[in-house]
Amino acid sequence: MGDRWDTGRTEAFSDGVFAIAITLLILEVSVPESEFDNLWRGIAHQWPSYLAYATSFITIGALWMFHHGIFRRLQYANTSVMRLNLALLMVVSFLPFPTKLLAEAIHDTDAERAAVIFYGATLLVISLLLSALCGVITRGRDLLRPEVSEQEINAILVASTPTLGFYVGVIVLAIFAPRVAAFGFLVIAIIAVLRARGDQTKPTEIAGPA
Amino acid sequence: MGDRWDTGRTEAFSDGVFAIAITLLILEVSVPESEFDNLWRGIAHQWPSYLAYATSFITIGALWMFHHGIFRRLQYANTSVMRLNLALLMVVSFLPFPTKLLAEAIHDTDAERAAVIFYGATLLVISLLLSALCGVITRGRDLLRPEVSEQEINAILVASTPTLGFYVGVIVLAIFAPRVAAFGFLVIAIIAVLRARGDQTKPTEIAGPA
Amino acid sequence: MGDRWDTGRTEAFSDGVFAIAITLLILEVSVPESEFDNLWRGIAHQWPSYLAYATSFITIGALWMFHHGIFRRLQYANTSVMRLNLALLMVVSFLPFPTKLLAEAIHDTDAERAAVIFYGATLLVISLLLSALCGVITRGRDLLRPEVSEQEINAILVASTPTLGFYVGVIVLAIFAPRVAAFGFLVIAIIAVLRARGDQTKPTEIAGPA
Amino acid sequence: MGDRWDTGRTEAFSDGVFAIAITLLILEVSVPESEFDNLWRGIAHQWPSYLAYATSFITIGALWMFHHGIFRRLQYANTSVMRLNLALLMVVSFLPFPTKLLAEAIHDTDAERAAVIFYGATLLVISLLLSALCGVITRGRDLLRPEVSEQEINAILVASTPTLGFYVGVIVLAIFAPRVAAFGFLVIAIIAVLRARGDQTKPTEIAGPA
Repeated sequence: MGDRWDTGRTEAFSDGVFAIAITLLILEVSVPESEFDNLWRGIAHQWPSYLAYATSFITIGALWMFHHGIFRRLQYANTSVMRLNLALLMVVSFLPFPTKLLAEAIHDTDAERAAVIFYGATLLVISLLLSALCGVITRGRDLLRPEVSEQEINAILVASTPTLGFYVGVIVLAIFAPRVAAFGFLVIAIIAVLRARGDQTKPTEIAGPA
Repeated sequence: MGDRWDTGRTEAFSDGVFAIAITLLILEVSVPESEFDNLWRGIAHQWPSYLAYATSFITIGALWMFHHGIFRRLQYANTSVMRLNLALLMVVSFLPFPTKLLAEAIHDTDAERAAVIFYGATLLVISLLLSALCGVITRGRDLLRPEVSEQEINAILVASTPTLGFYVGVIVLAIFAPRVAAFGFLVIAIIAVLRARGDQTKPTEIAGPA
Repeated sequence: MGDRWDTGRTEAFSDGVFAIAITLLILEVSVPESEFDNLWRGIAHQWPSYLAYATSFITIGALWMFHHGIFRRLQYANTSVMRLNLALLMVVSFLPFPTKLLAEAIHDTDAERAAVIFYGATLLVISLLLSALCGVITRGRDLLRPEVSEQEINAILVASTPTLGFYVGVIVLAIFAPRVAAFGFLVIAIIAVLRARGDQTKPTEIAGPA
Repeated sequence: MGDRWDTGRTEAFSDGVFAIAITLLILEVSVPESEFDNLWRGIAHQWPSYLAYATSFITIGALWMFHHGIFRRLQYANTSVMRLNLALLMVVSFLPFPTKLLAEAIHDTDAERAAVIFYGATLLVISLLLSALCGVITRGRDLLRPEVSEQEINAILVASTPTLGFYVGVIVLAIFAPRVAAFGFLVIAIIAVLRARGDQTKPTEIAGPA
């Protein structure tokens, strides 16, 4: 049987999972009623929740921008792309769990290290799956739209590589200084958003006549 | 009155329900604060939650791929397709409940058997509704796009049949060995994803000029 | 300033809200751990939750089919349509709250009556807003696609009217027999799905060249 | 590298986040079981939850209408638009947290003031990000579709400005009269929905041939 999937519904489904995973993150944040007599302090006291929320939100946001950049260059997907994408979505929608652990554990010296490493390991797996997805797509030249240049392909591969190294570095850092590492993941996410780039030409030119 | 529905908004609505059902599954997973003094053991101790999460995620993922494969071959839907699809979505968004029960009950010998059977029964109902949907679509030849071949129709019917038998088998197994059966559902889901196939021709050729 | 809104993004946004409201309903259903020693009885004991879940799911499903039927006949929306649609979505995404109350209160003779009436009142408000939306659309003939016949307009108006009377009837019934009334709402929802009709012609003919 | 992003998937992703943030708000509303002996009083007693729910829902609804108005006038987005939009979505999906605080704190004189100011500050940040987004878009004339008139650009800028002043005013009011201020945010949201305007011409004319 065949091996071609159109990308429109896959993008829509992926966007749905990204949008929901990103939005569910806030459900776990709350101020216990015992801190209501000084609510400003209670709100401030939740800073690990805000850090975890912002890091996961910006990480998924950068991932969405990157995902968008890959899929708009595809003519169609093959079965490998569909499977890797499903695996990627599975880890992305798992992310609210380590995010919650990170937020809860950061006030607790015993649990802090484990929570930060577990969180980082989840981001590393997301990053590995994204690299694998890039690899499959750039190798199968016929998956890409004919107008995509070699230069663009290289730019995608280059953009997906260093993040892996950063994650490994910050996970090692987490063994010695878990709180510093927690901020490290936020920095990686912000850099990934700042590095995301669009197209040189008008999207309508790239996409061809819709 | 008439009996024709366009498929675009039905696909969008179905994708929304699939994406949300798949993403909500993680909300129930958490490590109790009493296990924070040894968080790695606490994380490991949640393995039934991960098993239930992965099984339900991959099952819905395979279902989405199959659903996608059916709907892109439709010219339009009729009222039977709309009703069966709504029933299917109702059971899919019910799935987080047996998933949660499975995750909670697996450490409890009394409840384990009932939870695994109840979970399997829900998957069996999903599978039956999907078969009914395939049946309605392949019977009503005019629902399908003219370029869909008899061979493709048979492939869809064949793909939807064996899963039913597997589910019945694993549910029977659950009476004697509930934990083994819980892993059995995961295996069925992985096989269903691996068996999902795309088209032989470019999607744009199948879809015709949009 | 102008008063024309394109319908595509409004449909997408509405579909999102419908899909999420329909899927969140299951989050409240659970079996308390104290009933795990006899889980089958525990599962059966949750019947009011299943009743409430199914009623709200099928009601929103019927509403979605009706909403779909209205919006695909629109050329564009005006500001009244946008506001009424937003009000409708606000009550639809409020529905999980009375659904939860209904499920919790049905074992409690004191609370049962109030919960069923409150639930019915929410459905009545949804129904009133839907009728108002139909009224605005059928009055403003230029909102509709030119090919929509007077007959279709009447069919829409007729379909939206009787439900109002049914809801009032079942709410009155709830004063005397709240449990019977709770099943009454389910029956109304099922009838609404069964009465939903598509088009006489192919959707592509109605929609014209996209 | 390039700096052009097509707007279709960004709209779809934003709509997903808006729809989910708007729908999650109801999850926090519930009547404690202790109030089930007089459920009508229990339901009435939750009025701060309904106020917070309606205010956040209508605020996001108005924001969605405004966002829709901006994006349908874009030819494509640039990287600044993408980043500001992501920041906007991050604060929008943060909103359920201050909404919950507002609902919980309004019966508590100590916490009331802080909760209302914190809620207002979140709305102010949303409003500032929306103004920044309008500023970037109207400055970069080439981002807009050629048929968008100077008059329309001015109308967008004018519409986004006064809300900022209203929010600052109501936040100051919250220092002295937090409950009155809580209703003030609802009034601002309703006015924003009532002021939202569509186009003078048919959307299809604005959008050009799709």
